[in-house]
Amino acid sequence: MLAPPVVIAIPGGERHAQRLVERLGGERADVLVRQFPDGEVYVRIDSPVVDREVVLVGGLDQPGDKLLPLLFLAATARDLGAKRVGLVAPYLSFMRQDARFHPGEGVTATYFAALMSRTVDWLATVDPHLHRLASLDQIYRIPTKVARAAPAIAAWIRREVPRPVIVGPDAESEQWALAVARDCDAPCVVLEKTRRGDRDVSVTAPQLDAHRDRTPVLVDDIISTARTMIETVVAVRAAGAAAPVCVGIHGVFADGAHADLLAAGAARIVTCNTIAHASNAIEVDDALAEAARAMLAS
Amino acid sequence: MLAPPVVIAIPGGERHAQRLVERLGGERADVLVRQFPDGEVYVRIDSPVVDREVVLVGGLDQPGDKLLPLLFLAATARDLGAKRVGLVAPYLSFMRQDARFHPGEGVTATYFAALMSRTVDWLATVDPHLHRLASLDQIYRIPTKVARAAPAIAAWIRREVPRPVIVGPDAESEQWALAVARDCDAPCVVLEKTRRGDRDVSVTAPQLDAHRDRTPVLVDDIISTARTMIETVVAVRAAGAAAPVCVGIHGVFADGAHADLLAAGAARIVTCNTIAHASNAIEVDDALAEAARAMLAS
Repeated sequence: MLAPPVVIAIPGGERHAQRLVERLGGERADVLVRQFPDGEVYVRIDSPVVDREVVLVGGLDQPGDKLLPLLFLAATARDLGAKRVGLVAPYLSFMRQDARFHPGEGVTATYFAALMSRTVDWLATVDPHLHRLASLDQIYRIPTKVARAAPAIAAWIRREVPRPVIVGPDAESEQWALAVARDCDAPCVVLEKTRRGDRDVSVTAPQLDAHRDRTPVLVDDIISTARTMIETVVAVRAAGAAAPVCVGIHGVFADGAHADLLAAGAARIVTCNTIAHASNAIEVDDALAEAARAMLAS
Repeated sequence: MLAPPVVIAIPGGERHAQRLVERLGGERADVLVRQFPDGEVYVRIDSPVVDREVVLVGGLDQPGDKLLPLLFLAATARDLGAKRVGLVAPYLSFMRQDARFHPGEGVTATYFAALMSRTVDWLATVDPHLHRLASLDQIYRIPTKVARAAPAIAAWIRREVPRPVIVGPDAESEQWALAVARDCDAPCVVLEKTRRGDRDVSVTAPQLDAHRDRTPVLVDDIISTARTMIETVVAVRAAGAAAPVCVGIHGVFADGAHADLLAAGAARIVTCNTIAHASNAIEVDDALAEAARAMLAS
């Protein structure tokens, strides 16, 4: 029997916090977070947390305004006698810079993981951008649990897209595309990408000919500048396929990215609800709650 | 002989960094700080720091956009082999909440000090808001050095205000008012304040009668909402004194605070250059450089 947690939203995490309580039981804490005129952050937890499991909930996109509340709410919960403090982050961020690619660069994935590992006792998140790293355990020193978006994405595709062919834009996206294809029992092709910079990407199309009668569903973990997705849409159309559906787990959408992707010929753009955006159509709260449950039971 | 430091500005700290180099020698590092579309922060230090003293420079007002660059620049400098990493923060922030005044409050002064103590090896700052705490050593676990603004303020008053009487608005401000009065050889009176909330403050005027022929110079460490200063201006005027000069060490100036203080009858409002503001008239860079020099020599 799981001890019912006290759930605290960090700024922007209110809906996910509510959905977690609906799935795990426990209750939302009454919390006050406010700023003094110099930007100093004040936090107060008005619900009892002594000997309770505390779960902080919220995505870490745009972390500037979230980090201090997160650090302080965690420290305050500990100060007030919480048994453990966990973090449920639908979007993790700081997973790009996992090595020093150029001299002088900060390996921020490592620094951020070290900071979070000192801040909370465990972490649950949805499909972090693991690329060169095999697992969060390589940088996090606390127990972590990854919730997979693929089943929810596959269920959505089965419901919404007749005769899909899943397309991974590049080798990095292969892991997500293969998992979705397997879960919705569809064929999968992975294209090849050449990146020459943040916004300069070219994609070479493979033989999509074998799937001419199917609707391409492009799947990637993050849509940020959307350059990769746009080049993939162009390549898929050039190969004679139907206008594709674009699915991102995490829809960051840099300025203009969503409009550019539509303009490039995407029939539809949908994302999971890990980062709030109008394109959110696929809910991952069940998977996230299961991941949190596993951590709470550990 | 001091080892010449490598000086790195955190966002907003560029002018102070330049002034520190002019006073201590060493050089500004070439640094790149940029953001990805999801707000993830990228840092790169393009100057050699191996076995060098690294000094990060910048105020910690509005810390949301500064904290991650600060944390990452410090971690990167260490990663790249810096001998020590220090922080010169003209304004420290997070000095208000040094106790739990109401149940459930986070003692953020302590949490922030613990974070900084893990991030850098030493800290120099200008007149932190020490009120209930006697010293930064009570919360910081690293060596710290406080630069005093009083001599620079006193020099400015001697230059700009004939026959001043220094006025401390309340008991909290007494330490700054007394130091300034001593340094400019002027009389000093300290008023009494009753605070009923962030913006609800009343000040009772003492006998300023003995100083009718002098210009009141109100001195406080922080002007934020300016409520304390405004009530003091009103009390001083009600006591029949001349329109006062208002001096703040740190000019935070919440929305409208500066205009409200002028409207209340301040003859002039001046601040030290610890937080960039149009009222900056008193430079504390010499004192700050001396504090940094003491830390570098330790």
